Amino acid sequence: MSVRGAKQEQGEPLRAEIIAVGTELLMGQVINTNAAEIATMLADIGIGVYYQSVVGDNSTRLAEAFGTALERSDLVIACGGLGPTEDDLTRETLAAVVDRPLHRNEEWVTLLEERFAHYRGGTLPQNNLRQAMVPEGADLLPNSRGTAPGVYLRQGRTAVYLIPGPPGEMRTMMREQVLPRLTRELERDGRTGVLVSRVLRVIGIGESRVAELLQTLLAEQTNPTIAPLAGAGEVHVRVTAHGAHREDAEHKIERTVTEIRAILGDAIYGEDDTDLPRAVGELLVAQNRTVALAESCTGGLLGHRLTNAPGSSRYFVGGVVAYSYALKSSALGVDPAVIERDGAVSDEVARQMGRGVRAMCGSDVAVAITGIAGPGGGTDAKPVGLTYIAVVDGAGEEVARHVFHGDREGVKQRASQTALDMLRRRLIAARP
Amino acid sequence: MSVRGAKQEQGEPLRAEIIAVGTELLMGQVINTNAAEIATMLADIGIGVYYQSVVGDNSTRLAEAFGTALERSDLVIACGGLGPTEDDLTRETLAAVVDRPLHRNEEWVTLLEERFAHYRGGTLPQNNLRQAMVPEGADLLPNSRGTAPGVYLRQGRTAVYLIPGPPGEMRTMMREQVLPRLTRELERDGRTGVLVSRVLRVIGIGESRVAELLQTLLAEQTNPTIAPLAGAGEVHVRVTAHGAHREDAEHKIERTVTEIRAILGDAIYGEDDTDLPRAVGELLVAQNRTVALAESCTGGLLGHRLTNAPGSSRYFVGGVVAYSYALKSSALGVDPAVIERDGAVSDEVARQMGRGVRAMCGSDVAVAITGIAGPGGGTDAKPVGLTYIAVVDGAGEEVARHVFHGDREGVKQRASQTALDMLRRRLIAARP
Repeated sequence: MSVRGAKQEQGEPLRAEIIAVGTELLMGQVINTNAAEIATMLADIGIGVYYQSVVGDNSTRLAEAFGTALERSDLVIACGGLGPTEDDLTRETLAAVVDRPLHRNEEWVTLLEERFAHYRGGTLPQNNLRQAMVPEGADLLPNSRGTAPGVYLRQGRTAVYLIPGPPGEMRTMMREQVLPRLTRELERDGRTGVLVSRVLRVIGIGESRVAELLQTLLAEQTNPTIAPLAGAGEVHVRVTAHGAHREDAEHKIERTVTEIRAILGDAIYGEDDTDLPRAVGELLVAQNRTVALAESCTGGLLGHRLTNAPGSSRYFVGGVVAYSYALKSSALGVDPAVIERDGAVSDEVARQMGRGVRAMCGSDVAVAITGIAGPGGGTDAKPVGLTYIAVVDGAGEEVARHVFHGDREGVKQRASQTALDMLRRRLIAARP
Repeated sequence: MSVRGAKQEQGEPLRAEIIAVGTELLMGQVINTNAAEIATMLADIGIGVYYQSVVGDNSTRLAEAFGTALERSDLVIACGGLGPTEDDLTRETLAAVVDRPLHRNEEWVTLLEERFAHYRGGTLPQNNLRQAMVPEGADLLPNSRGTAPGVYLRQGRTAVYLIPGPPGEMRTMMREQVLPRLTRELERDGRTGVLVSRVLRVIGIGESRVAELLQTLLAEQTNPTIAPLAGAGEVHVRVTAHGAHREDAEHKIERTVTEIRAILGDAIYGEDDTDLPRAVGELLVAQNRTVALAESCTGGLLGHRLTNAPGSSRYFVGGVVAYSYALKSSALGVDPAVIERDGAVSDEVARQMGRGVRAMCGSDVAVAITGIAGPGGGTDAKPVGLTYIAVVDGAGEEVARHVFHGDREGVKQRASQTALDMLRRRLIAARP
């Protein structure tokens, strides 16, 4: 694809447009998170979204949307409607709008047959054959997470990508197929140089405090630009530089990042795709230490997050999800008298859970969480959200008390995030 | 307003359209939950949304969006851009598009002055005066939660509502102002009716197989309509009926749901918001049974998902995340010789993990998962994705072998989903 075209003057920004397809979106039964995710991903490579729209599973209105988009945009990403059933119309509708026949891609048919035989132990349903149809002159974009491949084609000056609607498949296809292609093309077109972004991941201070601390830098910013943005339990500071080539932009970013690091210090835990579990994992690997977990209110979330990092078996031993009082005592050795006296959500129980799981698992470090996730179970003295987190290692132990706000899943998320950060800071402090 | 007009034939449904205004939405920094909420509220009074779009804080593109909407829709709800700052352009842009002057509404000015004096102890900032400007011939819609009033006007056959963007204000204005007006008008036009949807949640069969099984129903559908949709590891079948009133629509849905249930049977595990962990929880509560978990490759995800359901402490005891070989043996009593002989990812190890955690936790049922989440660790004989899941209870035990495809998080998700479904089916089979 060449993303430079007649619709834009030399040096003008690309006009990107997102079309989300699905009656469930139009009716409000599903929230259109895909459009926001796609827009963010495009912004990260310097492409601005000018229009977003949602259309239902209706070929007339979908054709209208494609027609309008082809007229006004340089890049169109349509998401959804690539499934195997009759109401999945995106492929066929685009083919009709650009007036190209659909051809069956035999490689994808073979691959689907193999997958169905291998994973599902069956034959390929006839319906799924529709997913191997590709408009003439279009590229098929392999889908590593599902049966619906994506489609890429150019019509006049406009590049069109069709990608699947299930968020996991959308995300994977954007990362594996769409973004690499767009980046290559932007670079090949030498389009006003390159835009390079780096994200600094900050924890423990809020978005407005970050903005205050970076006030001078934010006031002076031109190139690179600096944008703080609230994430889930953390703040992302995106630094975006424009340069003649990648090294030039990287160099500019590096200078600004150094200044930001001097101000925010250890509150920056990682960059780009290094999320908090990965950052903690890297510290554990570097220190050759292992960790075990005793979870109560988080129910396994902390272990789940730690094990999302590939290679986590090098440092994660395992642990106990001690949801019942009885299991806290029988598996972790928490004194029933202490539970009776202080309650299961208390400083001392968190400590005993941490000590217990460390002994049981023979790990170097242990993290324990006990709290009230809600919505029930809160009292005036111990409100919903009250959480104690303990970190125990060979040098001693520490406990923190928090009251997290939010619904049940929010409290669990914040508790796991705070526990990871406590562990991180203790590992950093122990660094030789 | 009369919401019936030249654009629709007698008896045709109203065409509603939602325009969300804000650069933060377009860039993906804020997810467009407003559009989904508004669509759901409209569906509840029988109005279908045909188009949704998002435009930034840009008067040219906003004017385009209004122009298109006035041509094609009977009802337009534009949300956002009514704030006091320079980039809030919705009011002015609509006034320009419909070519009407803006007049200051003195009642609203007085009310704002009183509010600022009362709550904020100050005088009204000049900026806020913009919020009292209303296009000629339009109604001002009072805002009980903020400073930005809404606007209602008719242009030709189209009714246009401008409402504020902050979700709390949007919701209140929809409930207090927009919906009552729409309902009155629909009643006056003899157009009362409601759209009601129900979602059947299906597991264990894919979307295309569901479509095959429901082929006859799908071919015949008019009212209710039936739409299968792929979710994360499951399929949702949405049944939507239009009726004179809620009971009428519910009755139509019930009839179709009964037919679908006769075909899909136990593959339907729940309806609407009852996700799989909740459905399993309801079965456990009904049978007064408890469950414990032994997780290896899922790392705690299964426990996390089970404990997302409020009240899960009634049936979830806890369990062990046994990531290391050593912990599988020391905590769960898995025979090291069996791990040596069969490998940690094997039928027998899954069984022993299940038996071990059941004994340790004293639960009625236990679920154990051992697998290779990848990306490393796979071999020809034991590929990435290979997973054994055991369910153990007083009546015996069963093990299933699967090879899940996808990346690390995908394999974990599928493993947890399949484990929940195995547990569900075993609970159903045990039902007296």
